[in-house]
Amino acid sequence: MTMEEIKASIRCVPDFPKKGILFRDLTTLFKNAEAMKEVEEALVKKYAGRGITKVVGIESRGFVMAAILANRIGAGFVPIRKKGKLPAETREVTYEKEYGTDIIQIHQDALDTSDVVLIHDDLLATGGTMEAAIRLVKTFGVKKIYVNFLVSLDDLNGRDFLDSEVEVESLMHF
Amino acid sequence: MTMEEIKASIRCVPDFPKKGILFRDLTTLFKNAEAMKEVEEALVKKYAGRGITKVVGIESRGFVMAAILANRIGAGFVPIRKKGKLPAETREVTYEKEYGTDIIQIHQDALDTSDVVLIHDDLLATGGTMEAAIRLVKTFGVKKIYVNFLVSLDDLNGRDFLDSEVEVESLMHF
Repeated sequence: MTMEEIKASIRCVPDFPKKGILFRDLTTLFKNAEAMKEVEEALVKKYAGRGITKVVGIESRGFVMAAILANRIGAGFVPIRKKGKLPAETREVTYEKEYGTDIIQIHQDALDTSDVVLIHDDLLATGGTMEAAIRLVKTFGVKKIYVNFLVSLDDLNGRDFLDSEVEVESLMHF
Repeated sequence: MTMEEIKASIRCVPDFPKKGILFRDLTTLFKNAEAMKEVEEALVKKYAGRGITKVVGIESRGFVMAAILANRIGAGFVPIRKKGKLPAETREVTYEKEYGTDIIQIHQDALDTSDVVLIHDDLLATGGTMEAAIRLVKTFGVKKIYVNFLVSLDDLNGRDFLDSEVEVESLMHF
């Protein structure tokens, strides 16, 4: 499968989660074992050998490839979740959403200064959640942060909203 | 790492999500790359060669190991989510919770009659969600269903609540 074929396996759902949004549904890629294998290989090629010790996945679609990638490059997996979902002591950051604010959390003991971290989410849209995730991971004083998305919606310019010092890569672009 | 050491890496959080519940927090296992590798190898050993074509993960902690396992045994990954989270056409089932009912959904095109399915969740407690997940997957008329948990809380007898024809396995027991 070529990356173009993999990209074509992503379903477009109009008006989800609300009218006017064209939602890129990755479940049609995830259920395709061959497409998943190719995506995994592309990510391993990109991130193996960079000394990454933790892959942080953003709830909940980001968990899928973050877990696979962590496993393949010999790193641990760490979840970032919405407020109230993580059971032990947490750190949190607040971020602006279209209407009001939201809070994401990570466990207090999830990372430390020796870690090289890859933060992964499935899709970059406006970048609000990832901007907050980067701020959250930075509070641990980790050695280095990489950011990865499977898909970037380039029209929304989400990259401009993310810390310019962080290396951000997307496997596919719309 | 032995399975006992892996089990010891699971954190106990008292009174989460509410008073009187001793929560088994698997994030301390997930962040440990070595423990994850061992768990993965144990699951691959158990499920490789059974012709599994889809691994269904239950939102959202179940996504982590379901994704890894799908990837390792060459199967596709399929999410089961709470109502309203999946963007395309879905099937759903309702199930009883302690207070009121809940609804889980799966995409209409996620499975078909040619599939051999492994449904995975991180933890078996009372079995309510998994009982519903089995019912949901059965509506597709799939060839065979396996069920796997990382951890089973044996005191709660959740196994008794699950379809007796389905092969249910847990890697660790408390």
